Amino acid sequence: MRTLKSLSLRYDGLKLSVLDQQQLPQAEGWLDATDPYALIGFIKTLQVRGAPMIGVAAALSLACLARAGATLDEFLQAAKDLRAARPTAVNLMHAIDAMTAAAEVAFTAGAIAEVAESIFDADTELCNAIALQGLAVVKEGEQILTHCNTGALATAGVGTAIGIIRLAFEKNFDVHVYVGETRPLNQGGRLTAWELGTLGVPYTLICDSMAGAIMSQGKVSKVIVGADRIAANGDFANKIGTYSLAVLAYYHRIPFYVAAPFTTVDLGCASGRDIPIEERSPTEVRGALAPVDAPVYNPAFDVTPAELVTGWITDKGVLELKDIKDRALFRLAEVGI
Amino acid sequence: MRTLKSLSLRYDGLKLSVLDQQQLPQAEGWLDATDPYALIGFIKTLQVRGAPMIGVAAALSLACLARAGATLDEFLQAAKDLRAARPTAVNLMHAIDAMTAAAEVAFTAGAIAEVAESIFDADTELCNAIALQGLAVVKEGEQILTHCNTGALATAGVGTAIGIIRLAFEKNFDVHVYVGETRPLNQGGRLTAWELGTLGVPYTLICDSMAGAIMSQGKVSKVIVGADRIAANGDFANKIGTYSLAVLAYYHRIPFYVAAPFTTVDLGCASGRDIPIEERSPTEVRGALAPVDAPVYNPAFDVTPAELVTGWITDKGVLELKDIKDRALFRLAEVGI
Repeated sequence: MRTLKSLSLRYDGLKLSVLDQQQLPQAEGWLDATDPYALIGFIKTLQVRGAPMIGVAAALSLACLARAGATLDEFLQAAKDLRAARPTAVNLMHAIDAMTAAAEVAFTAGAIAEVAESIFDADTELCNAIALQGLAVVKEGEQILTHCNTGALATAGVGTAIGIIRLAFEKNFDVHVYVGETRPLNQGGRLTAWELGTLGVPYTLICDSMAGAIMSQGKVSKVIVGADRIAANGDFANKIGTYSLAVLAYYHRIPFYVAAPFTTVDLGCASGRDIPIEERSPTEVRGALAPVDAPVYNPAFDVTPAELVTGWITDKGVLELKDIKDRALFRLAEVGI
Repeated sequence: MRTLKSLSLRYDGLKLSVLDQQQLPQAEGWLDATDPYALIGFIKTLQVRGAPMIGVAAALSLACLARAGATLDEFLQAAKDLRAARPTAVNLMHAIDAMTAAAEVAFTAGAIAEVAESIFDADTELCNAIALQGLAVVKEGEQILTHCNTGALATAGVGTAIGIIRLAFEKNFDVHVYVGETRPLNQGGRLTAWELGTLGVPYTLICDSMAGAIMSQGKVSKVIVGADRIAANGDFANKIGTYSLAVLAYYHRIPFYVAAPFTTVDLGCASGRDIPIEERSPTEVRGALAPVDAPVYNPAFDVTPAELVTGWITDKGVLELKDIKDRALFRLAEVGI
């Protein structure tokens, strides 16, 4: 039973607190996510978000549940309900599967906590590994466009796409970041802008619709985004708007990279068509401005086909399309973390 | 001295009132724009907007100024200041030039009012002509993506892109419209959604970043947008985000049309590079959500090159790229309105 801390998570074996990402950057509020059902609510409202972070928080919340004396049945039911909280992100499912498997082998609070804590540790290490791998594709003076939030808020470590940018910045690569605000919930405008500002990384906030214009003006040398799930053929789901960026980058011949832990790969999905896409409430798009009865389409994610991707930056290496076609994802899956 | 009325304008020769488009759809507030300097303020805050509407309102405001007994010098100074209120839209400049020319020939309140009122009439007729021309390219059951607001709020008549859609709807063409919310000021989400709802035209509101996703899902059969200025080579400036839509439509082989009165053509601009692009305040992009000191890039417009345009729908006909290359814009400019 250890004490764990990340930018958006605090855990002491008995209690789990998570940073309320809907209040940022205006306020730093902490939520009690010790109860897995409270966490499910926070995931649905995106108060807790980021594919890796959701998986880590879910595991630690289950560890608290076991420590609080839940029965195996209660534990497994909570695990099952947590698993369904965010249908697109696969990291959550991997984390829950690991917790469930551990509980079925030996259902003791100590053993369960050990597995959950190892998921936290692994995520931190995966972030560092991704950042190191990604550094190989970043050049001096790069102007990087990113989308949504893939930093320390979204993971237990330094992040995925933002983790790479952060490492490049620390190595004095003179990087500059264009941050798409990421409608409808503005994870870019609220969270990435805040994180980069805190780190001192130079950035410029834009509306998502400006991406084409700044590309045509030669202001973007690279696009790096995260992923919620990567299919066996390299197609991947990520925050809505990612696909538009991929097409725009392709048209402007700008390298387009996706950065994610290998745990984001789901070999059970042959292609992007097999990835379920969560649709969310119309009120998110309407906000306070549109007519209250405006009909809305609000998919939370879209799928980018592998053909538009220059490289997949994972903790196990940077892959290209020819590697993926050569079944590299299947071979690497057998290597283990 | 006549009484004129449109959805967003009321004029009686002495007084000009304009609908406050920043309050819509939550409230219908009218602003007194009789004084040209009040109107300049409303244009800068986008309380009055839409390239044709700005030109019409400016002309009528100048007519009120002449009626109120201004000197020719005062009139010409106000005209000059109005002309600079929205640097990208060329309709305003055409309207001001006509008013200035009239004042220099005969500076009487009656003669000035007649010219201003004829600009209002002409805009209404231009909208009807555009709608009729545009109907020829709309098919039954079309799924049309549009951007910003190009309807009755933005003109003295039925609008440009929305005018076409409205006519097709009235002819029972079974059209459905996807409305991009048009960040940062949400003219799509606030104004187009409201207008289409009022008219009963079926529509779905989306975030701008969803355009690529819905195109890849086969949900869009045509894109129709407006224009603030069309250069001699067919390049055109329109609300920021238009260029991204043009690239996305090109990639998905979806026809992309621009609809505008011929008065939007500026033969003085050889290409889109000559069109000045207004940059607006960072606060529009930050809103209430981003860090208050977030660095922002906020161009109000972008330029779409002619190569990405399937057709230019004007009151003088629907042009294709080969027509434009064959100097059709120059020939039609000599025909007069």
